[in-house]
Amino acid sequence: MLNLYTDATPNGLKISIALEEMGLEYATHQVFLGGEQQTPDFTSLNPNQKIPVLVDDGQVVTESGAILIHLAEKTGKFLPSDPKQRTATIEALMFQMASVGPMFGQYLVFAAAWGNKFPDVTGRYFTEVSRLMGVLNTRLEGQDYLAGDEFTIADMAVAPWIRLCGLHPACSDLPLAANANLNNWWDRVAARPAVQRGFDNPAPFAPEKQFQGFVDAVVGLGGLHKAA
Amino acid sequence: MLNLYTDATPNGLKISIALEEMGLEYATHQVFLGGEQQTPDFTSLNPNQKIPVLVDDGQVVTESGAILIHLAEKTGKFLPSDPKQRTATIEALMFQMASVGPMFGQYLVFAAAWGNKFPDVTGRYFTEVSRLMGVLNTRLEGQDYLAGDEFTIADMAVAPWIRLCGLHPACSDLPLAANANLNNWWDRVAARPAVQRGFDNPAPFAPEKQFQGFVDAVVGLGGLHKAA
Repeated sequence: MLNLYTDATPNGLKISIALEEMGLEYATHQVFLGGEQQTPDFTSLNPNQKIPVLVDDGQVVTESGAILIHLAEKTGKFLPSDPKQRTATIEALMFQMASVGPMFGQYLVFAAAWGNKFPDVTGRYFTEVSRLMGVLNTRLEGQDYLAGDEFTIADMAVAPWIRLCGLHPACSDLPLAANANLNNWWDRVAARPAVQRGFDNPAPFAPEKQFQGFVDAVVGLGGLHKAA
Repeated sequence: MLNLYTDATPNGLKISIALEEMGLEYATHQVFLGGEQQTPDFTSLNPNQKIPVLVDDGQVVTESGAILIHLAEKTGKFLPSDPKQRTATIEALMFQMASVGPMFGQYLVFAAAWGNKFPDVTGRYFTEVSRLMGVLNTRLEGQDYLAGDEFTIADMAVAPWIRLCGLHPACSDLPLAANANLNNWWDRVAARPAVQRGFDNPAPFAPEKQFQGFVDAVVGLGGLHKAA
């Protein structure tokens, strides 16, 4: 049995997409990030107090990138077995984990949660996210998906971040239209029925509650967090 | 033949450590990050203009996390084959790639490259890096290494970041001594001869040159970078 602890955030939705694409049965447990991630129960699942967490027949797996590789190896799907293609897929996944996710995340912190209090800092992250979108665009030159001609876990990992360009007011000025390969890739990925089902699971909390949770968790790092 | 394009930064040194631990022969090509990463030759290797890059018999691999998995699977070393241990190793590696590295990196940007111009922002990253060190400390409770009782690629990935606590003035106040498990882990890892050889390859550029390269590359994002 697969139990997914998650919320409707980019890192969470990656796993909903994977589970839907792989045709796996799973139970969804929605976690409100305005505090539920810091309860003793959740902390015992993940000491880092982050979603998503997958519990696969008793094995607890944290980190969305690790969950994606775990599910791909469990099912034999979306992570090519050819060594070169496999390395290319993990490379694109790592680029998402190390750059696309963290830099989009920091951009949202300063543009949204901190209310653009420090425009120079917001600008740094706008510049960096824009640059990273250009790198994705270059990667997609002459190929349909991020690791080649096949849709893989790397595409699942990037999709919920690019989706923000059409979803979050702070992201509407990011250069999606200007990066034609990336824009075409987005259209291709977003048209997949399983991706659409993934994006819908779980439904987000009401906008004000969702945003307040984000603010509580990340401003400064918020009232919720304490330094070690 | 293995060709490593790198510099004496945490992400670069991970790969030197791996190559030394695995006993592989390789040639080192040092890249000065004050601009050499943006030459056409280097950009053709990695459109993201980041080190490290490994060229393995013609296959170009970027992203330090992907290079570590590639080398571990090539040699059959430092990534356990037992599925549970394997997932735990990749989980710890992803935690480094997605959190430890990016957050240490942002801390250094605001504490050092930006000269602590925005103390609230510096403070956010100091708090977050401190918290992450606490998570590593929790992870190490009752086990010698980050993924269990074996030294793995996850330890190689985290070591160069924790090393900064004793190396970089901006990191000397981070809570290493207060996290006893992490401190003991650090002593254990840093005592390994191959880790020591990795830390020494390549030697850093002269301190002023190294720092200026860092400033050029990351302030705002520096004169070197343009938005897409």
